[in-house]
Amino acid sequence: MRIALCGGTGDIGEGLALRWAHDTDHEILIGSRDPEKARAKAEEYETELDERGIDRTVKGFENGMAADRADVVVLAVPPYHVRDTVEGFADRLDADTVLVSPAVGMQRDDAGLHYHRPSEGSVTAVAAATAPEDVSVVGAFHNLSAGRLADLDAELDQDTLLVGNDEDAVDVVRLLTEEIEGLRPLYVGPIDNAPEVESLTPLLINLATYNDDLHDAGVQFE
Amino acid sequence: MRIALCGGTGDIGEGLALRWAHDTDHEILIGSRDPEKARAKAEEYETELDERGIDRTVKGFENGMAADRADVVVLAVPPYHVRDTVEGFADRLDADTVLVSPAVGMQRDDAGLHYHRPSEGSVTAVAAATAPEDVSVVGAFHNLSAGRLADLDAELDQDTLLVGNDEDAVDVVRLLTEEIEGLRPLYVGPIDNAPEVESLTPLLINLATYNDDLHDAGVQFE
Repeated sequence: MRIALCGGTGDIGEGLALRWAHDTDHEILIGSRDPEKARAKAEEYETELDERGIDRTVKGFENGMAADRADVVVLAVPPYHVRDTVEGFADRLDADTVLVSPAVGMQRDDAGLHYHRPSEGSVTAVAAATAPEDVSVVGAFHNLSAGRLADLDAELDQDTLLVGNDEDAVDVVRLLTEEIEGLRPLYVGPIDNAPEVESLTPLLINLATYNDDLHDAGVQFE
Repeated sequence: MRIALCGGTGDIGEGLALRWAHDTDHEILIGSRDPEKARAKAEEYETELDERGIDRTVKGFENGMAADRADVVVLAVPPYHVRDTVEGFADRLDADTVLVSPAVGMQRDDAGLHYHRPSEGSVTAVAAATAPEDVSVVGAFHNLSAGRLADLDAELDQDTLLVGNDEDAVDVVRLLTEEIEGLRPLYVGPIDNAPEVESLTPLLINLATYNDDLHDAGVQFE
């Protein structure tokens, strides 16, 4: 499978790129608005994998070029760029491409971070509203610590929540999640259930703020 | 310590009453709008504890009578009764009483349950806005499965999140939480951070809806 990480130069993109490159044989494409930056980061990831004895080609492209070539496109961009990013390559996506939305809108006050709910209900819903009709959107990876994901020495041993309206698309993301060692995907229903999933991200950050031993904490449901 | 469970005839009240009666020596008062119902339930709890070889007195009172006598008052009532309940006994609370708010407002749609945020920001904030000034409010126990809590044979082994503006009051609830075997209290900051904590409750219920093996699931942060 070919996976494009749009915004793959950012922290969550880096983590997912390294983990999939490390744990699977899927082809990994790094996307950025700036193709030079994408290529530089892709090379960095190759070097890191090479140092671990893993001979991997990771290629960098402009976001639209990466998405055009991929079966699965992860929107690893800031939440306020999800709409632009999808609009930018919507007409170049194949039918059956699966879009994955991990972004969360947040606002800070004196107490901590808070979920900033877009008028569509969630960032995942923004992606779904912007995507072409034959392209399915799955919300996933919202609640993973980017730092822990990008540190290949760190054990994950955590759950990540999936929301989506299309069963086949959810199954694709479920398998891709299971292929990352230590990640368990848990389905939580249609995209209408994304707000409560996305709300977990500011909670995890607040928890880290008030508990020194819970930096980069993940979540397990048992 | 004397703990009043207002709405202690309901499911979360029952769970906390049984666990504290089983695991600690604190005096447990069951509160209800109907004192007869409170006394009947208190007797039921006594019987259940007695069957486990634990000789415990659990007394039932009208909510205000229970709160009047207690050091810690748990508002184990439905979210839309939190304001009424606190108003009903506000003038009878001693200074330094700690009010504990576990209730969460939720709404159902076709996909699942959703967090229903009160205009105050959270149910915990509603309790804080209604309580007398010298009475501190701590949000806690939102994310515990009532069924698992009330089943004394069930292992808990889960985390519960605390929010509160007053350190001493948070410490009281932290200790009371630690005294329940298998519960780990985690502080997440002031009451302004309660919305993200309360949002976890509909998420857990949606998770149970879509995953047969996650009925009564709790959460661990690691």
